[in-house]
Amino acid sequence: MLTYSFANLQGECIYMHLYKCIRQDILEGTLKAQEKLPSKRMLAKNLGISLITVENAYAQLAVEGYIFSEPRRGYFVSTLQQAQIPAPKPQQTPQPAAQDAPPILSFAKSSVPPDTFPYNTWARLLRNTLTSADEHALISDTATGGVLPLRQALVKHLYQFRGLNVAPEQIIIGSGTQTLYNLIVQLLGRSHIYALEDPGYPQLAAIYRTNDVFCRYLPMDEQGVQTEVLESSGADILHITPSHQFPTGITTPVSRRYELLHWASQKSSRYIIEDDYDCEFRLFGKPIPPLQSIDRSENVISINSLSNTLAPLFRISYIVLPPHLSSLFYAKLGFYSCTVSNFEQFTLAKFIEDGYFERHINRMRTYYRNKRDHLLQYLAQCPAAKALKVEGEDSGLHFLLHLATNASDSQLREVALKAGLQIKFLSDYYHNKLGDNSHTMLMNYTGIEDARLYPALDKLFEALLPYLNI
Amino acid sequence: MLTYSFANLQGECIYMHLYKCIRQDILEGTLKAQEKLPSKRMLAKNLGISLITVENAYAQLAVEGYIFSEPRRGYFVSTLQQAQIPAPKPQQTPQPAAQDAPPILSFAKSSVPPDTFPYNTWARLLRNTLTSADEHALISDTATGGVLPLRQALVKHLYQFRGLNVAPEQIIIGSGTQTLYNLIVQLLGRSHIYALEDPGYPQLAAIYRTNDVFCRYLPMDEQGVQTEVLESSGADILHITPSHQFPTGITTPVSRRYELLHWASQKSSRYIIEDDYDCEFRLFGKPIPPLQSIDRSENVISINSLSNTLAPLFRISYIVLPPHLSSLFYAKLGFYSCTVSNFEQFTLAKFIEDGYFERHINRMRTYYRNKRDHLLQYLAQCPAAKALKVEGEDSGLHFLLHLATNASDSQLREVALKAGLQIKFLSDYYHNKLGDNSHTMLMNYTGIEDARLYPALDKLFEALLPYLNI
Repeated sequence: MLTYSFANLQGECIYMHLYKCIRQDILEGTLKAQEKLPSKRMLAKNLGISLITVENAYAQLAVEGYIFSEPRRGYFVSTLQQAQIPAPKPQQTPQPAAQDAPPILSFAKSSVPPDTFPYNTWARLLRNTLTSADEHALISDTATGGVLPLRQALVKHLYQFRGLNVAPEQIIIGSGTQTLYNLIVQLLGRSHIYALEDPGYPQLAAIYRTNDVFCRYLPMDEQGVQTEVLESSGADILHITPSHQFPTGITTPVSRRYELLHWASQKSSRYIIEDDYDCEFRLFGKPIPPLQSIDRSENVISINSLSNTLAPLFRISYIVLPPHLSSLFYAKLGFYSCTVSNFEQFTLAKFIEDGYFERHINRMRTYYRNKRDHLLQYLAQCPAAKALKVEGEDSGLHFLLHLATNASDSQLREVALKAGLQIKFLSDYYHNKLGDNSHTMLMNYTGIEDARLYPALDKLFEALLPYLNI
Repeated sequence: MLTYSFANLQGECIYMHLYKCIRQDILEGTLKAQEKLPSKRMLAKNLGISLITVENAYAQLAVEGYIFSEPRRGYFVSTLQQAQIPAPKPQQTPQPAAQDAPPILSFAKSSVPPDTFPYNTWARLLRNTLTSADEHALISDTATGGVLPLRQALVKHLYQFRGLNVAPEQIIIGSGTQTLYNLIVQLLGRSHIYALEDPGYPQLAAIYRTNDVFCRYLPMDEQGVQTEVLESSGADILHITPSHQFPTGITTPVSRRYELLHWASQKSSRYIIEDDYDCEFRLFGKPIPPLQSIDRSENVISINSLSNTLAPLFRISYIVLPPHLSSLFYAKLGFYSCTVSNFEQFTLAKFIEDGYFERHINRMRTYYRNKRDHLLQYLAQCPAAKALKVEGEDSGLHFLLHLATNASDSQLREVALKAGLQIKFLSDYYHNKLGDNSHTMLMNYTGIEDARLYPALDKLFEALLPYLNI
């Protein structure tokens, strides 16, 4: 007969303790496969516990399959595949993950300054959403593309600020552009060849690769992707950043845009994915109208992120599909739930409707312009000034810095790294490597506060100075 | 010479107006390709506006590529591909999307009751997060797998409530299980055969299909997927819901679990994806320990959703990877950003740490148990009682209702629909169709408040009664 102690329960209920003791005996082989267990009544009497306690323990063991019952015969131990029964493991307490090493200062990665977002306004709107919104709307499953108020708010925004005339159904909200790229591949399919800009955004190529999509990397001239190169690539899908190419900063002029649209209109399987990742932050003149606004053959899919515009606080991005693709989307991918929480969507809708979004963008554009002007002034006066040439300073949130040097890009990268600074060169972004002598560094400065930015630049140019031709 | 009126600007600035007028003339062909534009000074004089205004308009047109400049010769109209120049479109104001028709009451879909979530607590924690958290942490880009505090909180939760002993690095947070399924395919690759339960969750099959993964649909016995069937399917990846199979409600016993683990341990390419979608809500006894807790060969990937547990308010789910896969994940997919906003993650971490999560689950389990008991009572006493048999009522948030009937499932589905009620049968969930005579209806009742539930059930059984064998 089974004998267990109930002395040291430490708050555990009796039936759980009994369940665990019997399970232990089964796993360790003390109770053999097919062995009959004592009747519930017998065991209860023997252990001096109530019948219901034994019943509960047996029931849990039976539900999990450690034991089974035969009508009128009682309970028996199940046969378990021995190979997989775990050796008793020493109980480890879980270890917290090691914190990442503090990052060195980097000019390689764009970021948003932490203290510019109107947190109080957002918190207030969020509170209103949580308390006053229709709770049913708030918690009921969202439509695939997002809640209607947010899509309507974006429709108005796109109409007023980007010249796009679209219906809410054409907008698909998602938690970040990466999620949406995945959806686009699932929408358009893996049988097409996708063409990407070379150089380009490395994460984008990685996403297409992990999606097992065949990619071509197209070289560019000073207007972006060339139509002849595109034509001969065999690609059906072209993914571009026409208003501010990353990393070169090229703005594709309207003539080239029409050429690309013409290319797309030649075959029904052709589409252009237009990724205007920082179009709001053109620092001179007004934002470039999107390709989609001059497309009349429904060949352009726009994608944009609010994480860049607002703060990485948000993981909200959206795509704008041409009407026929939006129908296909619901037919093919309508089983997906939207990946952004409803309450964030409602709050953002209000944030846009009440004008906070526009005000924030305007404020940020001024902020970035001032920051950039200050930086340009610094570069014009620093000891390395004569060896520096700035390019693409109007087009968005990073610019290029040509260095007059005979040193290779990797040599300079090493020198900077020794000074604790991460820098990247144009040559780092090529898929089809073009050697190591672009002599052109990316200047991502927007997220670094001045108090850290200028000492870091002093340090950088001090380190690079011996390698520059002055 | 170009002549434009500046009479009706309606708040538009002069340079924008000039820019639009000239662009219009180019697009309509009034200004021909390669035609020389008037000098800036001349045009300014002629239109009676300032030189800087003309300069700004020309600069914007040049940036967008409508015109180009030749050094010392002036500005010329670019050549645009005529085929793509849009015919002037009547300006439509965007139409708001039509609202979906109000849904009929459905027993086919599980949902969470709207009024059970502690909104006030959540709002308070969220406010604290927004105001008191380290802003840098809040807005800086998140790690692929999620913020450390949330992963640590989940580690503790999994240890205490699921018997899982894992490190924070093994946990990957994502905005919903669907997003995470996509990541799992990208992690394990598309060259494997994936095996799914038949019948099963239809969205799951849809996700694998749109990922171009080859799927096998495995029939089950009363313990779930059979090892021999699995073995001969040629599959490497098995996706199962072992603690509460959807839709059959089967709980896979521990003997079968060891067999499946044994199968997985035979080849290094084999993995089991364990989808415990409502494991917290076993309504009798304690939750079934996960397969992952008895796996000693690192072959099990667990996936769970907090949207089910808390409220669809949240789009937060997580996977628990075995250690070697977690390394592979960072190497292969580390370029992804986490798809859940940082501030939601920090708030949820606090919600778990402070014990609200556990309390909420306990409260909900009691709530669901009472609701279920009440419903069972109703079913035992309703006019159709003699033709009804309940099954799987302990295993989670839906159960099965066998109907004694000679009518086909589709016949009964139609009858219910005419009464305004959506019901689904086991036969609706089979990939390899098993005919139309399962006579077994799914009862999803958790999200429907009593005031609507019971009148709807009255209506349902009134409609079905003529078809039942009583």
